[in-house]
Amino acid sequence: MKPVIPLEDSFDAVLGVEYERPGDGTVAATIPVRRHLLQPYGLVHGGVYAAIAESLASAGTAFGVAADGKIALGEQNDTSFLRPISSGSIHASARALHRGRTRWIWDVEMRDDEGRLCAVTRMTVAVRAPG
Amino acid sequence: MKPVIPLEDSFDAVLGVEYERPGDGTVAATIPVRRHLLQPYGLVHGGVYAAIAESLASAGTAFGVAADGKIALGEQNDTSFLRPISSGSIHASARALHRGRTRWIWDVEMRDDEGRLCAVTRMTVAVRAPG
Amino acid sequence: MKPVIPLEDSFDAVLGVEYERPGDGTVAATIPVRRHLLQPYGLVHGGVYAAIAESLASAGTAFGVAADGKIALGEQNDTSFLRPISSGSIHASARALHRGRTRWIWDVEMRDDEGRLCAVTRMTVAVRAPG
Amino acid sequence: MKPVIPLEDSFDAVLGVEYERPGDGTVAATIPVRRHLLQPYGLVHGGVYAAIAESLASAGTAFGVAADGKIALGEQNDTSFLRPISSGSIHASARALHRGRTRWIWDVEMRDDEGRLCAVTRMTVAVRAPG
Repeated sequence: MKPVIPLEDSFDAVLGVEYERPGDGTVAATIPVRRHLLQPYGLVHGGVYAAIAESLASAGTAFGVAADGKIALGEQNDTSFLRPISSGSIHASARALHRGRTRWIWDVEMRDDEGRLCAVTRMTVAVRAPG
Repeated sequence: MKPVIPLEDSFDAVLGVEYERPGDGTVAATIPVRRHLLQPYGLVHGGVYAAIAESLASAGTAFGVAADGKIALGEQNDTSFLRPISSGSIHASARALHRGRTRWIWDVEMRDDEGRLCAVTRMTVAVRAPG
Repeated sequence: MKPVIPLEDSFDAVLGVEYERPGDGTVAATIPVRRHLLQPYGLVHGGVYAAIAESLASAGTAFGVAADGKIALGEQNDTSFLRPISSGSIHASARALHRGRTRWIWDVEMRDDEGRLCAVTRMTVAVRAPG
Repeated sequence: MKPVIPLEDSFDAVLGVEYERPGDGTVAATIPVRRHLLQPYGLVHGGVYAAIAESLASAGTAFGVAADGKIALGEQNDTSFLRPISSGSIHASARALHRGRTRWIWDVEMRDDEGRLCAVTRMTVAVRAPG
């Protein structure tokens, strides 16, 4: 399965996810808070946190199952909002809790520049044969 | 509490949420699928569904509690992905299951142009005094 | 796959789930509130609602996929608590939102004797080949 | 607020939760797998994991806010099932991710005797004034 949308035209580019090198069942990224990611009251929109977590967990699963010729498909995204962010950067780190044959489960933590936990996501990603 | 970001500069504008008139505990919207909402494989990014649901449930709660001088704050967003969408529009409808003193709980359904259910969200929105 | 524990010795018997006839993608049941289902403050324990939802959605899926020789396995249970119950009965009804090849997704509503919504569950059940 | 049901008559006694000493934002417990906790196929019922997590997170929050005269009320319980258990014990450990003024958020992990992760719960507990 080949990408059909260049990364720079995709929703990841809208979010501005800057990936760090993925590890073994871990993914980290920094996302600068820009004006178009805010809701009208000047806080980062809740959907932005959910989307960041989705990108990290999907990318981490895809990376982990590619050698088996499998693909990753987001199945469920449960995001809790703990503390608003209005400026600076979002620091996201994802860790695979479970790497099963048919699905991976991730915990994603998102922190502000002071290291305070601002949102957490539990993400289920299905592992499928392509096509 | 006054908005500080014009709606046309906010994340709702990135998503392209076109609201219909809110009802009593219901909100509906249409979101045309545009290229920047896709992930690299040409499907709508999972975070887009979560963000749409967040916008509808938050707007519906804010609308419902404004007369009491209260504000709405997203607390938890649990989105399940059922079927991918790659073109056309996303048709979203939100319904308040519970309207409590301290939180509202919503179900949001998102369908494609053929009316097939593609994503569902259970969303918890806190009701707070401003400031 | 054959049951190995008689229903009257199983956790369903502890809960006291009295099933009504399952429909096409629907299951309903009544659960009398008995003392051993309460937490120390005299309210039905939150885990009881989650367990009831789990039983209904699993039974409904198992019933729906049995003709194909498939089995049902609970994958995720997301229960929200809206209003406590301390006596009377819990009236539960489950409805399949999505019946896919690999998983079914259910909404379960639990009400008190006055018909007030007290807990809601979104439940994901995997469909698998036995063994 | 005083307990009205002795712990030995409550749902915790049905579950057989054996608490270890609570720490600062942590709670652990062991639960022997007994026949009445199984579903008909001989596996621990999914609702048992959800109920264990509910008990630990609620107890941990109640313990943490008692000094302020506050009480704990379960708000949402999202449990994912990773691997079935049919015998031995369930080893549960809960950790508070967030201790806010109005709610605490917990991660609960449940493992088998071999230390394998079998279920995980994200649990939201509301902090309220009594009465």
